[in-house]
Amino acid sequence: MQRYAFVVNVVPDLRDEYLRLHAAVWPQVEATLRACNFTNYTIFILEDTLFAYYEYVGSDHEGDLALIGQDPVTRDWWTHTDPCQTAFGQQAQEGERWRAMREVWHLA
Amino acid sequence: MQRYAFVVNVVPDLRDEYLRLHAAVWPQVEATLRACNFTNYTIFILEDTLFAYYEYVGSDHEGDLALIGQDPVTRDWWTHTDPCQTAFGQQAQEGERWRAMREVWHLA
Repeated sequence: MQRYAFVVNVVPDLRDEYLRLHAAVWPQVEATLRACNFTNYTIFILEDTLFAYYEYVGSDHEGDLALIGQDPVTRDWWTHTDPCQTAFGQQAQEGERWRAMREVWHLA
Repeated sequence: MQRYAFVVNVVPDLRDEYLRLHAAVWPQVEATLRACNFTNYTIFILEDTLFAYYEYVGSDHEGDLALIGQDPVTRDWWTHTDPCQTAFGQQAQEGERWRAMREVWHLA
């Protein structure tokens, strides 16, 4: 199992929309994540910052990410969620949204 | 099991010190956390922001937090880590450090 964490800002005017969407994530989006070995996946918010934590239980994270990106329902979902998100931090690249964090400590 | 997430900024000048401390967290600090029902505890960093995720498997989170705060080794540890941390966000209270986040979505 590998742990991952990502951070992004929510667009202030679309904060309520983001929360509304995540109160009822589309079943096919969740099913695709599960099928692609994503588990114990949680998104948290404070003010305008979103943190995502998940555990990957497969053997090809990049490959499974690519599979998720091929799912048409997930791609449709992203057309709703992408506009709600804007990059976090000073060193974000143009067009970047969720940025990976680095693990500094773990207690099993 | 209850999930918790917290966020704080690292003081830029003490970023390396924070990372050095967490490369070798004192065994008694980790033992106290385990004894107080904290598990799957991870801290992540991006730029100057720290994100902590843990799972609480006891039945009295506030009580266990108080017990942790009574452990003299943990209190000593905090004299090293507290100066490295400064509140995250616009709505932080005076003297606040780690601020709790709210869960917006979870996939088991």
